Amino acid sequence: MINGSKRISQPLRWAMVGGGRDSQIGYIHRSAALRDQSFALVAGAFDLDPQRGRAFGIELGVDPERCYTDYRSLFAGEAGRPDGIQAVSVATPNGTHFAITKAALEAGLHVVCEKPLCFTLEEAQTLREIALSRNRIVGVTYGYAGHQLIEQAREMIAAGELGDIRMVHLQFAHGFHCEPVETQSQAAQWRVDPRLAGPSYVLGDVGTHPLYLSEVMLPELKIIRLLCTRQSFVKSRAPLEDNAYTLMEYEGGATGSVWSSAVNAGSMHGQKIRVIGSRASLEWWDERPNQLSFEVQGKPAQVLERGMGYLHPQALLDDRIGAGHPEGLFEAWANLYYRFALAMDAADRGDQQRLATLRYPDIHAGVEGVRWVERCVQSANGGGVWVDY
Amino acid sequence: MINGSKRISQPLRWAMVGGGRDSQIGYIHRSAALRDQSFALVAGAFDLDPQRGRAFGIELGVDPERCYTDYRSLFAGEAGRPDGIQAVSVATPNGTHFAITKAALEAGLHVVCEKPLCFTLEEAQTLREIALSRNRIVGVTYGYAGHQLIEQAREMIAAGELGDIRMVHLQFAHGFHCEPVETQSQAAQWRVDPRLAGPSYVLGDVGTHPLYLSEVMLPELKIIRLLCTRQSFVKSRAPLEDNAYTLMEYEGGATGSVWSSAVNAGSMHGQKIRVIGSRASLEWWDERPNQLSFEVQGKPAQVLERGMGYLHPQALLDDRIGAGHPEGLFEAWANLYYRFALAMDAADRGDQQRLATLRYPDIHAGVEGVRWVERCVQSANGGGVWVDY
Amino acid sequence: MINGSKRISQPLRWAMVGGGRDSQIGYIHRSAALRDQSFALVAGAFDLDPQRGRAFGIELGVDPERCYTDYRSLFAGEAGRPDGIQAVSVATPNGTHFAITKAALEAGLHVVCEKPLCFTLEEAQTLREIALSRNRIVGVTYGYAGHQLIEQAREMIAAGELGDIRMVHLQFAHGFHCEPVETQSQAAQWRVDPRLAGPSYVLGDVGTHPLYLSEVMLPELKIIRLLCTRQSFVKSRAPLEDNAYTLMEYEGGATGSVWSSAVNAGSMHGQKIRVIGSRASLEWWDERPNQLSFEVQGKPAQVLERGMGYLHPQALLDDRIGAGHPEGLFEAWANLYYRFALAMDAADRGDQQRLATLRYPDIHAGVEGVRWVERCVQSANGGGVWVDY
Amino acid sequence: MINGSKRISQPLRWAMVGGGRDSQIGYIHRSAALRDQSFALVAGAFDLDPQRGRAFGIELGVDPERCYTDYRSLFAGEAGRPDGIQAVSVATPNGTHFAITKAALEAGLHVVCEKPLCFTLEEAQTLREIALSRNRIVGVTYGYAGHQLIEQAREMIAAGELGDIRMVHLQFAHGFHCEPVETQSQAAQWRVDPRLAGPSYVLGDVGTHPLYLSEVMLPELKIIRLLCTRQSFVKSRAPLEDNAYTLMEYEGGATGSVWSSAVNAGSMHGQKIRVIGSRASLEWWDERPNQLSFEVQGKPAQVLERGMGYLHPQALLDDRIGAGHPEGLFEAWANLYYRFALAMDAADRGDQQRLATLRYPDIHAGVEGVRWVERCVQSANGGGVWVDY
Repeated sequence: MINGSKRISQPLRWAMVGGGRDSQIGYIHRSAALRDQSFALVAGAFDLDPQRGRAFGIELGVDPERCYTDYRSLFAGEAGRPDGIQAVSVATPNGTHFAITKAALEAGLHVVCEKPLCFTLEEAQTLREIALSRNRIVGVTYGYAGHQLIEQAREMIAAGELGDIRMVHLQFAHGFHCEPVETQSQAAQWRVDPRLAGPSYVLGDVGTHPLYLSEVMLPELKIIRLLCTRQSFVKSRAPLEDNAYTLMEYEGGATGSVWSSAVNAGSMHGQKIRVIGSRASLEWWDERPNQLSFEVQGKPAQVLERGMGYLHPQALLDDRIGAGHPEGLFEAWANLYYRFALAMDAADRGDQQRLATLRYPDIHAGVEGVRWVERCVQSANGGGVWVDY
Repeated sequence: MINGSKRISQPLRWAMVGGGRDSQIGYIHRSAALRDQSFALVAGAFDLDPQRGRAFGIELGVDPERCYTDYRSLFAGEAGRPDGIQAVSVATPNGTHFAITKAALEAGLHVVCEKPLCFTLEEAQTLREIALSRNRIVGVTYGYAGHQLIEQAREMIAAGELGDIRMVHLQFAHGFHCEPVETQSQAAQWRVDPRLAGPSYVLGDVGTHPLYLSEVMLPELKIIRLLCTRQSFVKSRAPLEDNAYTLMEYEGGATGSVWSSAVNAGSMHGQKIRVIGSRASLEWWDERPNQLSFEVQGKPAQVLERGMGYLHPQALLDDRIGAGHPEGLFEAWANLYYRFALAMDAADRGDQQRLATLRYPDIHAGVEGVRWVERCVQSANGGGVWVDY
Repeated sequence: MINGSKRISQPLRWAMVGGGRDSQIGYIHRSAALRDQSFALVAGAFDLDPQRGRAFGIELGVDPERCYTDYRSLFAGEAGRPDGIQAVSVATPNGTHFAITKAALEAGLHVVCEKPLCFTLEEAQTLREIALSRNRIVGVTYGYAGHQLIEQAREMIAAGELGDIRMVHLQFAHGFHCEPVETQSQAAQWRVDPRLAGPSYVLGDVGTHPLYLSEVMLPELKIIRLLCTRQSFVKSRAPLEDNAYTLMEYEGGATGSVWSSAVNAGSMHGQKIRVIGSRASLEWWDERPNQLSFEVQGKPAQVLERGMGYLHPQALLDDRIGAGHPEGLFEAWANLYYRFALAMDAADRGDQQRLATLRYPDIHAGVEGVRWVERCVQSANGGGVWVDY
Repeated sequence: MINGSKRISQPLRWAMVGGGRDSQIGYIHRSAALRDQSFALVAGAFDLDPQRGRAFGIELGVDPERCYTDYRSLFAGEAGRPDGIQAVSVATPNGTHFAITKAALEAGLHVVCEKPLCFTLEEAQTLREIALSRNRIVGVTYGYAGHQLIEQAREMIAAGELGDIRMVHLQFAHGFHCEPVETQSQAAQWRVDPRLAGPSYVLGDVGTHPLYLSEVMLPELKIIRLLCTRQSFVKSRAPLEDNAYTLMEYEGGATGSVWSSAVNAGSMHGQKIRVIGSRASLEWWDERPNQLSFEVQGKPAQVLERGMGYLHPQALLDDRIGAGHPEGLFEAWANLYYRFALAMDAADRGDQQRLATLRYPDIHAGVEGVRWVERCVQSANGGGVWVDY
């Protein structure tokens, strides 16, 4: 049960790169990091426009002299202070993640980075090497993974309640970009520009989210090959896709599918994961995150509710309020951020034992997301052919 | 509005092949055919076991001497009577559909046949030739197509309410065979025996149902190529699949997918069709057939209800009771059967104009279902490769 | 499992009073009665307009000479035939039920009557006396009671799965008359005219439906007092109500409530019953009649599905098709009509033992409905005061 | 759009009374108050056990010397400091609210108090007098009112989208206390002890929540009389009720009902509000707070989603993240707390104009809740009779 008391002795001194006034993602980073006294926002380079960034930093309560013009001056300036930052969050367009994360790690900082970590598997592996060699934590904001019922699903699957796993069906298919909104919205614009967004749009932007949920729920499952087709239904988005289908084969004979879309007209999010075993299935939907559907063949379907005593203790660890009350995405992110803090603290203390017990989207998860996108693009560009993983 | 009054001057004299005492499908055929005075059950060969079939026929009210031992004697015996049958329904295992339907057509009878019509496209085309040359009607029991809201969807799509069609997502994925139930149940046994079931299990058994719904809703859409992978999660079912994924490309750039499954543990039916256009989507689920979801991007999602005055007149033609009251699958089948009767009557009268206005799953729909299964199997057997349609 | 075979040796010779061409309720009576060879429609007085009624009777396949001008000539004419009718259904406006049902019973006929049976408890008791003294069956069309899951609920409650019963919440609250539609629609007009509709509108028209469901599920529960307030939100309907609330106290301390409404704007039906016990609750909704919600405190909520093997055998007796396929209101009515036929047949054979096993809305249920409306009106007219039951 | 930037120049110096380590309600107060830099937690008397309270305060980051043993020493101690607290939240059992709130107001503090404010209308009016005369803000934590779609409902009703308001149906009916859990749980124990809980259990504990939602949505609606019956299904709870029904009559002819329960076995929360007008209805459910159902008679039902551009600007003011992402109860509370802060700040600045624009559950709302409970108890204790309001 989380009650707002400190989890580590002192909040980590923390900065943001990006996440300015109009950034939606910036607010959820801050809201999550500051929720439970794990981080204190003491510096930042919040905006490409330094004046605007500085003004906003001040509104956030940051010391004006620690509102920097860019990430380089932020890392340099803080390095020169006895009370300099210990961790930084990167909430900028995709094309900058690699350089900023690399610079932060090289500056000795722990990093929380938006997905995707970078554009190529090679880059991702580079970041992993640096992080591991320098004992720095990299957290990746696959934020939905912080929902309590994801943990519950993992435990139920591990306990064999589904029988042998046969299928994993993933989708994140919203409709907000079914028209070329990027002509009107700057926030949408960079997402469909390959220089800024990388080799894919929806595969990376939305598809990797349920993919990570499947990694949490099914840690043993390994993709052996996949096939992907991608479409640009709004033609001006080509070569970037606004819709994609991926079929996957796992070791041991299970199969998977992922539908990634920004043109599922009328759908709000449509992020769902359904895991099908030989005796039962589990289904979770991010728009109703407090419920988990459990369907045993030949029995009445059941709905598990967040916060109830029948859940696994590991799931209840993250509970913040009594069952019935809806927790939302902010709680999920906060759950990740406090685990990031625990990991950073453990890394700083060299406490490998503690580190081993902490479950969060780490550098390996970041690498896997990049790998999956790269393979999907390779398959799609090859005409929708099977590629080894 | 259907009120039980006669649609044709005299009920068609009608027989069944198969559909015996324990046959679930037999009952829905009879219930549908007899519902609205379109057919009168006057003869039959209801069972492989002639004694049992005769006894059951008598319980159904059939004259004992018109309870035949098999389809051959049925067609011969009735041909010799002045009041002989005009139409026959075939509700036997798949492996017999071709021979019985062919014999019935050659005996000058109209036919209602369970899907799949037969095992190969070549056979299907043979049946089509005979039916067309002899002016006989073949109705195929894609029964879900009789639901009123399928017509509503067709009209909305035709009117452009969805914008340009981009995606068609189909699934029929139940969980009733997630264990090898065929070892216990004779009714399940033949479905996984290639000699009796044909080249596929779930592709033909369930996948063709939503496929036909898509043909009704989107009559202009043509598949140009497809890719299929199929699995036998219960291994003893190989080479027949109990699960399959199909990806499709349509003329004009739209894409489609079909998930066919009998091992979706815990799912009741899971038959759904979602049609996604450039401005809105429609979704229909056979377990809630009185509702149609209409989601316009940027607007509140809407739920259309059967029987309401805002529906298209073509949809309301089949109404049997006020909105709010649930109609079920029996009404859907009855709606098909009365259209079958109207078509048979029109064919007998040589009324081509009337025939052209009647929408029902006809011989062409039967052929298309067989073609789709054949192509899917070809793709899957080739290792999940794209095949031209 | 119902498969269409005969339940009684010969279909009962049956007529209708009312239920003409445009009558919605007429069609569901016929559809139900004719479904399973329990009744044969051989005569009728279908319409106030004899010409129109005769024409419609012929379309239904009735011998023109057995299409009568009114119920008196129907009963007299049929009494004079060796093949005269054995049973009659009354589907006319409320104000005529008493006279027609009384005449039918006195003519020695079994009767199926629309609810309410009549306007006063005294009349209802008169009908009961005649029916009992003449050994005639009166079935009342509380049609929703024919849904399989109502039987399942009864069995679960009887088995103690809910613990002690504490609350019974009933509602039937649609919105179709939220405007004064009676100025446009003849079908609605008589319902708000006290001479034709009786002492109440929605209490009798919709409230008695879930009331009867509660009687089926909870045969032991007895109302000891109730309080009712009623409103005429469309003012021209006064003194008849278009909305009413009833609170009830049962023997033993349980409480009940009923919301009856025709002005629940935007609601389709809103007929629901929730039974709350000391350990669990059951909830059923007539718009999703194939599902029954079972909620055990402290456990995941469950959804029971029609047709599944885990249901009580008594519930499965009425099954017509495999689980997953939706059955609708027509099946529920057909289930009642075949029980009416079994009861009529047993009464004719003097088989009291068989009669005792048959569960259907009988004359006692009809009397109870009238009593409840009378008491509610008494309470409401007294200013919303408690009245003994 | 809320983005975490400061709304007032400096966070208010703030303390809590109650809300200790194991208090669920304590955490949501802190989480809400600290979310958006409106308050800074600088002092507290967190626990009846001073040692435990002090230890917990330290974990929360409070200066040990500002962790007090009780509310009296808290108010006295802080009054003596130049940086003393400006506001206090009261999160203690009901029986202490009056005394603590009164003392806080008299100490010149703004107050946020749990509902119910106190036990009697007289006490409530006393608090109101003090607050008004001293220009102090009292916020009452009817937390659900902070959900964005409540504002949307208010605006839609005000704009006449429902037509004339006819009915307001309220319920908060959970099942967590369907057994005598108070024998095991201290947290439950005081709720059923009249000395600590006051004159009612569920009427005050849960019923007042949807009551306040109705006050927000329908500011013009005035109760003129009501009738209440209450039950103690767990007998040891008498005279306090664990279930109650209230019927209400409003000025102008509208009617209302409230079902308050802690014994609705198997229900999670069951807090719902349905407002029915002459042309449409709105329905909101606290377990799915991001959706608002809008049902116009004769049109397809609609679901409005939080965060969408089609919502009223007043509703979107509180938006924290893009539509599709679920916000939960924590956001609702945070929305109230920042309004509390704005009101306190405006009061301190004497800015009556600003105060007039702020909508939050204030002292008047607190008084109304107490009045409603008092009238309900009066009616129920009188045998379920109508009482003037």
